[in-house]
Amino acid sequence: MVTRKEVAALAGVSEATVSRVLNGVGPMKEETRQRVLEAAEQLNYHPNAIAQSFARGRSGNLGVVLPYVPKVHLFSTYYFAETLSGIGAKAAEKGYDLLLKFRSPETESDYTTLFQRQKVDACIILGARNTPEERESLLRLKEGGLPFCLVNQHFEDAELCEVDADHVTGSYSAVSHLLARGHRKIAFLNGSPEYSNSADRLLGYRQALQEAGRQLEPELLFEGNYSRSSGYRIAEEIVKAQPDAVFAANDRMAVGLMQRMRELGIQPGKDIAIAGYDNSDAAKIADPPLTSVAVPFFEMGALAAEKVLSMVHEDGTGLVIREKLQTQLVVRQSC
Amino acid sequence: MVTRKEVAALAGVSEATVSRVLNGVGPMKEETRQRVLEAAEQLNYHPNAIAQSFARGRSGNLGVVLPYVPKVHLFSTYYFAETLSGIGAKAAEKGYDLLLKFRSPETESDYTTLFQRQKVDACIILGARNTPEERESLLRLKEGGLPFCLVNQHFEDAELCEVDADHVTGSYSAVSHLLARGHRKIAFLNGSPEYSNSADRLLGYRQALQEAGRQLEPELLFEGNYSRSSGYRIAEEIVKAQPDAVFAANDRMAVGLMQRMRELGIQPGKDIAIAGYDNSDAAKIADPPLTSVAVPFFEMGALAAEKVLSMVHEDGTGLVIREKLQTQLVVRQSC
Repeated sequence: MVTRKEVAALAGVSEATVSRVLNGVGPMKEETRQRVLEAAEQLNYHPNAIAQSFARGRSGNLGVVLPYVPKVHLFSTYYFAETLSGIGAKAAEKGYDLLLKFRSPETESDYTTLFQRQKVDACIILGARNTPEERESLLRLKEGGLPFCLVNQHFEDAELCEVDADHVTGSYSAVSHLLARGHRKIAFLNGSPEYSNSADRLLGYRQALQEAGRQLEPELLFEGNYSRSSGYRIAEEIVKAQPDAVFAANDRMAVGLMQRMRELGIQPGKDIAIAGYDNSDAAKIADPPLTSVAVPFFEMGALAAEKVLSMVHEDGTGLVIREKLQTQLVVRQSC
Repeated sequence: MVTRKEVAALAGVSEATVSRVLNGVGPMKEETRQRVLEAAEQLNYHPNAIAQSFARGRSGNLGVVLPYVPKVHLFSTYYFAETLSGIGAKAAEKGYDLLLKFRSPETESDYTTLFQRQKVDACIILGARNTPEERESLLRLKEGGLPFCLVNQHFEDAELCEVDADHVTGSYSAVSHLLARGHRKIAFLNGSPEYSNSADRLLGYRQALQEAGRQLEPELLFEGNYSRSSGYRIAEEIVKAQPDAVFAANDRMAVGLMQRMRELGIQPGKDIAIAGYDNSDAAKIADPPLTSVAVPFFEMGALAAEKVLSMVHEDGTGLVIREKLQTQLVVRQSC
């Protein structure tokens, strides 16, 4: 079978350009377009698919829904930056543009109104939360027939397309590591339970404790909002509980925690063990470097983009896809 | 005069929603739309502008052109993350979506083909370079009548809309600081001279030396590509030149430089002074914390979005706008 690669080689262009021309989605110099079409014809490369694609009149846009997070520099947070980088890389490869939609407080949980104008061929939803309204809205969106995929969020029994990471095992590995290093009183600073990844981490924390024959102590559970400042603010309260280790549900909270601890005269990594989550750049250059759990956000974004775009081209709108990528503990000096 | 704020208050919605309804750009529940229109009518808020806007059939999209940078997680670099956060915040406030267009090698310097399908009302160009082809392409885009703005790049005499930062003064302040601390042999690790901000930094470096009665020594000039790994790779060569301080044109290169220096047995901050640029998160949590020059990328992105969107609504397509925001030296332990 003839591949896109061969068409690209014959036409002397990139594979992305071949996709763009054959899907009729991107802007293109007429000369380049002609060269690609001739190469495709010469190699007898899917002529029917081409005709079909032209006839459909697609927008050439992949929508990405972003949550309403006031005052946060959204693209500067590790999760959004990496996930969008992965989505963007795959979209560019397939010749698609990205249409970013910012939810407002009014459209917060109503996905159907977001795409009334039909400016996208498919969409990816970031920062979805496990609330009844959101679940309801996602099911309505599914009925509408627009291919979509959630990243880093799953809904039990809802039969949606989801690309997630194994946060239960990720959390379990971090807490087991702390236990293996002899720590007994391990505080857990989690994020909002409305995110399935927070709930998963709590599950992993509980499993690790149980396996070590220990009970979960509710007074060692704390909740932040995944921001550095929330870790900073809650540090004093955590210190009062006198844990010998803290597991934070992301690196940003861990960094805030360590900053405040130092101000309180406590040396992270010496007086108290700290483990973070995400394995962001912050973990690598923190002082001390932070033990953390690596999550392949870039790959998750790229995979989600690939899945929804393939649904567009194969009319697999009703497909239920559940991908769960592996996480990995990275041990550094903080514990 | 009646303001958008008053309409928002009367309708019980956010100002962003008022914009969205009155510009006819975003998806909206019919009930909300009616409430806003009634409030606008009741307060006699620009009824003509509203009618006009509906008639024009805008896309409601603000385009953002991103450079072709293979293998880089684009949104994870400080400049793009912060600038896009600023653009996104302003777009969301005005009720616009962002359409991100990734250049490919083929469309690298041809802006006019990027918007052949007219899916945007205005656009912002990031990562433009000072080459004759690019300049030519921008002037053609200008003739085409689409409002656009460059961020962090300027072209002498080209009469475009540009939002830039004062990198000459930023660079000057960092080098002057190193000179004031007694350093004499100051190496400069710059990025590609095709970016006007690189050229501006070289100018600032030269001015600071001249003011201190010193000549620029070409053997102390080095070039990276703004990546951490380029700083890491060039470190050994810089060390061979035996400077007593290094000024890096961004924090990422400075961090790579410091990592490699430590491997070579040189303690940054003690054996050699290091100054970075951008004042990114990396500068704050580097070891030692990095003296750096803060650049208001978020504000630059927001300002560029505000300027081009106001051109859409005021038909000021031909407007020449040159904004230059201030930079600021932030002194930390690395020098």
